Amino acid sequence: MPPSHSRQRSPLQEFQLIDTLHRRYGRTGPRVVRGIGDDAAVVTALKGHEWVVTTDLVTEGVHFDLTTATCEEIGYKAAVANLSDIAAMGAKPDYLLVSMASPTSRTAADIERLYRGIMRACRPYGVELIGGDTSASLQGLFVNIVLIGSVPAGRALTRDGAQAGHLIYVTGTLGDSLAGLNLLSGRRSLKGSFGAMTRPDQGLVRRHLRPTPRLEIGYTLSTQRLATAAIDLSDGLSGDLRHVCAQSHVGADIDADALPISPALRGYAQRHRIDPLELALQGGEDYELLFTIAPRHRLTVERLGRETACKLSCIGIVRPHRSGVRLKDRSGRMRRLPLLSYRHFRPMPHPRRGGR
Amino acid sequence: MPPSHSRQRSPLQEFQLIDTLHRRYGRTGPRVVRGIGDDAAVVTALKGHEWVVTTDLVTEGVHFDLTTATCEEIGYKAAVANLSDIAAMGAKPDYLLVSMASPTSRTAADIERLYRGIMRACRPYGVELIGGDTSASLQGLFVNIVLIGSVPAGRALTRDGAQAGHLIYVTGTLGDSLAGLNLLSGRRSLKGSFGAMTRPDQGLVRRHLRPTPRLEIGYTLSTQRLATAAIDLSDGLSGDLRHVCAQSHVGADIDADALPISPALRGYAQRHRIDPLELALQGGEDYELLFTIAPRHRLTVERLGRETACKLSCIGIVRPHRSGVRLKDRSGRMRRLPLLSYRHFRPMPHPRRGGR
Repeated sequence: MPPSHSRQRSPLQEFQLIDTLHRRYGRTGPRVVRGIGDDAAVVTALKGHEWVVTTDLVTEGVHFDLTTATCEEIGYKAAVANLSDIAAMGAKPDYLLVSMASPTSRTAADIERLYRGIMRACRPYGVELIGGDTSASLQGLFVNIVLIGSVPAGRALTRDGAQAGHLIYVTGTLGDSLAGLNLLSGRRSLKGSFGAMTRPDQGLVRRHLRPTPRLEIGYTLSTQRLATAAIDLSDGLSGDLRHVCAQSHVGADIDADALPISPALRGYAQRHRIDPLELALQGGEDYELLFTIAPRHRLTVERLGRETACKLSCIGIVRPHRSGVRLKDRSGRMRRLPLLSYRHFRPMPHPRRGGR
Repeated sequence: MPPSHSRQRSPLQEFQLIDTLHRRYGRTGPRVVRGIGDDAAVVTALKGHEWVVTTDLVTEGVHFDLTTATCEEIGYKAAVANLSDIAAMGAKPDYLLVSMASPTSRTAADIERLYRGIMRACRPYGVELIGGDTSASLQGLFVNIVLIGSVPAGRALTRDGAQAGHLIYVTGTLGDSLAGLNLLSGRRSLKGSFGAMTRPDQGLVRRHLRPTPRLEIGYTLSTQRLATAAIDLSDGLSGDLRHVCAQSHVGADIDADALPISPALRGYAQRHRIDPLELALQGGEDYELLFTIAPRHRLTVERLGRETACKLSCIGIVRPHRSGVRLKDRSGRMRRLPLLSYRHFRPMPHPRRGGR
């Protein structure tokens, strides 16, 4: 199916966009030898460091929906997904590349808003835009982000270092983003402002649209050699914990009562007669970190939480592999942790009614 | 428009794909600390080197068409587009990340074929697959490739070093890829084998589907400090030369008679009554290199061409900026070089009849 002329962004438009981006975001620091506008970017390595590279592709209708989020919010969140991966490796983010395929229904202003959102998420961390690509799309908007970071050699936090007896921590609170998504999905358009929502509900929506990458805590956990394994919670605790267990060849016991649930989420769950525990286990896109530490580091880590004003909760303990991944429920009974996989941009598929 | 369940590749399928890729391509060398399967990849930097990073997004119906190319060929070519950018920087390619959004009409076997094509292009150069992302797409296949290479510090070939008096060279021959595309586009399906084509025409098609990235020559030009500027010819000589001129603030005189045109292209042009010069100026996706050198390096560069068995042609000379970009035609007349922009995956829009 050969595309019609009108479906293609002309090379001229592409060059104009590159020029605009170059002018706006191309003010690069001393480590960028060559930024946007050549065949490739050239950057210098930091002495004694390793490079950490991640990429994340988000697509319209699968990861986001332009009726519940603006272009700027979509850009912001796509960037956070990558920043959060860098945080989970205990690294600092340095460089950014953005590829985008957009249908003709999107204007140049939409594309610029997307970039604005991306840069708004990245700039506080000094990340520099060094390249990318643009293309037409026959249907739907596609945004691929690449983030390159650095970590002192040998210190990257991987998923395979957890050992039986280690403590399992998470940052922040869990499930807020999913509740925020559910609240947004109840509305047909963004035109209706937050006015009609309670303040705690607004907070949940904000957690969905503007999550915080846990870069400071991740970097401290790696450089101070505190964590033995780490992952970011993008697909939900239930699934992401399993990745750590599988790669570390261990099991885990999670304590339902210890899961950090925000007052806003409790209120939301009560009103909608949903079990907040289920939201906390299933909810993805919280972009909190899950990490394990040897018990001797407990006090250091808890002090770190206070110093960085980042809530840290010990939610369980690593077990030998044969134990599997279990949940101690509120009555003290152990059961297999249910695998509830999070689907991006879909409201909760099975709200359990009457639970609590 | 919320996506239906069936349109999404389930997380399980994604994990299986990652596992398969990990098994098949994840045998990484000593510089890869962590490859596929964690939050991000970790790689070590080469001492005394800078990093070169490029990304290229290709989309179905815009850059390729599954009726004229197989999944493996599309993967191969997408990889070459990136390898060629690395070649144009005078760097060596090291690491690869692949993001892909695919509609449900594509099977897992299709996706694996795409990867096979990508790896077939990359493996001869020792490039290692270190990460990527997969997603569903509502319509059309999207492939984004990131390539990370390295170059000795300070030696990268950029577009801005050309000076008046420098000689302009290109590798290989020009226009073959466009002729190959035209030949392919005449057929409705790939099912018809090459049998019906003459051997020279088969060669043109092969140049379109399996271009060669000029990595060896690019690396030599940079490390031996021979070239003053370089670009790869992905959008056609006419446009790409202008990028070098604009960024170097120079003009250029190109000699029509010096443009390297293959016997196969001459034959094709004669049969179709097209001017081969126009194909050579307009044809994109040849993935040859255009570079400039100071005249004192002329003999060294020509010896290099013989040693590497890579045809090198001096096609013109760099002029002061005020001269503009000109073409000396066969009658010796100077005229402004026409800007003929190449559109990927579109047969020649305006075949000039009766030309020659």
